[in-house]
Amino acid sequence: MTRWPTPDPMLQALAHARTAGESGEVPVGAVVVKDGVVIGEGHNLTRTDHDPTAHAEIVALRMAARALGSERLTGCDLYVTLEPCAMCAGAISHARIARLTYGASDPKGGAVEHGARVFEQAQCLHRPEVIAGVGEAEAGALLKEFFTARR
Amino acid sequence: MTRWPTPDPMLQALAHARTAGESGEVPVGAVVVKDGVVIGEGHNLTRTDHDPTAHAEIVALRMAARALGSERLTGCDLYVTLEPCAMCAGAISHARIARLTYGASDPKGGAVEHGARVFEQAQCLHRPEVIAGVGEAEAGALLKEFFTARR
Repeated sequence: MTRWPTPDPMLQALAHARTAGESGEVPVGAVVVKDGVVIGEGHNLTRTDHDPTAHAEIVALRMAARALGSERLTGCDLYVTLEPCAMCAGAISHARIARLTYGASDPKGGAVEHGARVFEQAQCLHRPEVIAGVGEAEAGALLKEFFTARR
Repeated sequence: MTRWPTPDPMLQALAHARTAGESGEVPVGAVVVKDGVVIGEGHNLTRTDHDPTAHAEIVALRMAARALGSERLTGCDLYVTLEPCAMCAGAISHARIARLTYGASDPKGGAVEHGARVFEQAQCLHRPEVIAGVGEAEAGALLKEFFTARR
């Protein structure tokens, strides 16, 4: 049997998710890649930074935009361990991310294949290519473990 | 004839929108109020800061959360001159804003009464009270003037 290997940027996003969980943040990680080089990365920091917007995707997108000196991340890939919420899907569209690859689906908070389905709205000005389910087993296990331990 | 006066925080948000327009940013301003005191304010800074997430609402919410030392802005009001997009509506929900007052409606990019209708999704965990159309004439005029000048 052959299993498709998890791409390196998703492994890196999963490592960020693990770090987040260890520090009491919801274990989600994200990585932005341009031309094969990581230019933004991070994990949830909402509690640590007292910032309701500091989801992993926002942290990674802001770092990448600073690195490029542009608010548009044209030609960039975003890897994130969990389906983005409405806030993050909106930010991904504003940032002109070319391709979004995510791990676990999130029926409760996701806004790509659930709920607000941000990229499917007629008014959405930029839709990334979307690839779901990459590294989903590990991404989901990290979240399950985190929330089980806190119950 | 009596006209309902525009509340002070919205006047302040409009002043921020004017400042944004003068510096080449889309003229949108936002103010966060807690117990009658402004604890967060700002305007679009996406170009200036090379930050795709730096909409007026996000700038004001982040400032308010830093001021309170908490990612939850419980009991806070957000005033913004334009209907929030999906990114900002998501952030408003995450921040637990009690009441959202906005000026002009935005059929092209808004996600409160248009498009993704973020607060109307069954999965939305926190819905603010929403008041629309406050200061909308001036808010809309600023935007129209800005985009007409750039065509």
